[in-house]
Amino acid sequence: MSKLSAQDIETKLLRFPDWEYFDDAIHAEFEFDNFRDCFSAMSRIAFECEALNHHPNWSNVYNVLTISLSTHDANGVTDKDFKLAEAIEAIVEPVDE
Amino acid sequence: MSKLSAQDIETKLLRFPDWEYFDDAIHAEFEFDNFRDCFSAMSRIAFECEALNHHPNWSNVYNVLTISLSTHDANGVTDKDFKLAEAIEAIVEPVDE
Repeated sequence: MSKLSAQDIETKLLRFPDWEYFDDAIHAEFEFDNFRDCFSAMSRIAFECEALNHHPNWSNVYNVLTISLSTHDANGVTDKDFKLAEAIEAIVEPVDE
Repeated sequence: MSKLSAQDIETKLLRFPDWEYFDDAIHAEFEFDNFRDCFSAMSRIAFECEALNHHPNWSNVYNVLTISLSTHDANGVTDKDFKLAEAIEAIVEPVDE
């Protein structure tokens, strides 16, 4: 899994408006109604992390969840991070169809 | 719920060797075997937080959980923080009896 260039990352981020690229990682902050809703989303994300064998650097304060994704072995952002970001988006912002 | 003095906090911390006091909060870091074990502990802690209606500022990276406790309304550390710290200790370091 090789590190993506800054330009590749910015191009991919066009599809991920909640995410920003800085400090060799992609970052997002999500706000929920309360702690329960926030931790419920974290639990669902945790299962995705295990399924993808890729784990975030994340923080929570009450209803706010902050997530940073990078690939340690590649020393930067890789497709693994975007795969996890996509799974996270599907959890935190389900699209009604 | 009134803010405890630095001296009261240090005295109370004698019973909590995993915790340190700085920046108007008490802080601890716990290491687990892997992400699953770490997130399992977080889930149990989340239930205690809801039961106590008191929530941490916490971060996770793979098998490491970092927790900071303070009481926003009191602008410092109160007995609520020690109550939650005690509940956390019971989860992360169960004593075999």
